[in-house]
Amino acid sequence: MLERELQTHGRTDFVDATGLVSAAVAELGLTDGAVLVFNPHTTAAVTINEGADPDVVRDLTVALDRIVPWQDGYHHAEGNAAAHIKATMCGSSVAVIVQGGRLQLGTWQKIWFCEFDGPRRRRLWVQPLASAADALP
Amino acid sequence: MLERELQTHGRTDFVDATGLVSAAVAELGLTDGAVLVFNPHTTAAVTINEGADPDVVRDLTVALDRIVPWQDGYHHAEGNAAAHIKATMCGSSVAVIVQGGRLQLGTWQKIWFCEFDGPRRRRLWVQPLASAADALP
Amino acid sequence: MLERELQTHGRTDFVDATGLVSAAVAELGLTDGAVLVFNPHTTAAVTINEGADPDVVRDLTVALDRIVPWQDGYHHAEGNAAAHIKATMCGSSVAVIVQGGRLQLGTWQKIWFCEFDGPRRRRLWVQPLASAADALP
Repeated sequence: MLERELQTHGRTDFVDATGLVSAAVAELGLTDGAVLVFNPHTTAAVTINEGADPDVVRDLTVALDRIVPWQDGYHHAEGNAAAHIKATMCGSSVAVIVQGGRLQLGTWQKIWFCEFDGPRRRRLWVQPLASAADALP
Repeated sequence: MLERELQTHGRTDFVDATGLVSAAVAELGLTDGAVLVFNPHTTAAVTINEGADPDVVRDLTVALDRIVPWQDGYHHAEGNAAAHIKATMCGSSVAVIVQGGRLQLGTWQKIWFCEFDGPRRRRLWVQPLASAADALP
Repeated sequence: MLERELQTHGRTDFVDATGLVSAAVAELGLTDGAVLVFNPHTTAAVTINEGADPDVVRDLTVALDRIVPWQDGYHHAEGNAAAHIKATMCGSSVAVIVQGGRLQLGTWQKIWFCEFDGPRRRRLWVQPLASAADALP
């Protein structure tokens, strides 16, 4: 497992982590299988979505803020309950296929680190998983 | 990795992909591990839910349309921002355990390809992952 | 794959399954890779979120009930359509990295079994996945 760090800006901030994960795959020497990209924080998430038009991620964060308002009579005393709720709705990890040493993503797909309670210094873990073909005798 | 194609009908359409994935597992010769079922599109998703009563998927799509309206002042110029938002809420992939050469799903579970901006010709990628037992010396 | 059972209490109930999964990892003898923690039910889910303050999970369940009301003109005759919808929003499985024989979770993260149509006796499946390093010759 490799650990990488990234810096988020603003309370909500989606950071394109595709290059970071791609470099980790190369460093790990993984040729065929998948990578598990895991976010170890409870007020952040990882998702895959379009990277070409920045308005996609802008619309996504605005919609999540509408669906899960920052203040809504929550009991959690730290005041960031909305960030925890969005973390579960978006998911704590993504898995991406690796083939020929390269991440297999669709034409418009990027891997996004989703900050919901920033700005903060955050970590991202990348674990290489073996393809079944590699494990065959 | 195997690539499969499927056709969706209507703007929103959930297509049962269980048979397609099950056939891919057989073709891959995977006996023990898991399959990563990955959707390479940013306005579609993959989820696992009930397949016995078609009203479950009907209720799910209606609820998602209510939670994420098709028009809501989005900035994304292509007009399909809602589809991108639903893609992140449902997830770009599912992983399913394989044992004895068979997909391990609960009694009522099916694997659904979730179209949010159709109708379109879509692709689905299936990657076999090794169980740790296979990798032991 | 190991199968574990757990009991839920109340219609909505989040049960901390971290200990159960951790014990399964030890029993499987997995030292490096990941575990796929899979829920085989269509009205339940698995998620990762904070375990220190019980109000986080309380706020999460209240927010999900607000976003997906129990009654909302659903067609599914069993009356538990909301539980199916929440199952897709939270996800049917989580994958967690294992290193040195231990689950790799962030400081505040716990693995939660999410009951949306209880109380019931439920099952949870744990499958060990090989790291790519293990599969190298």
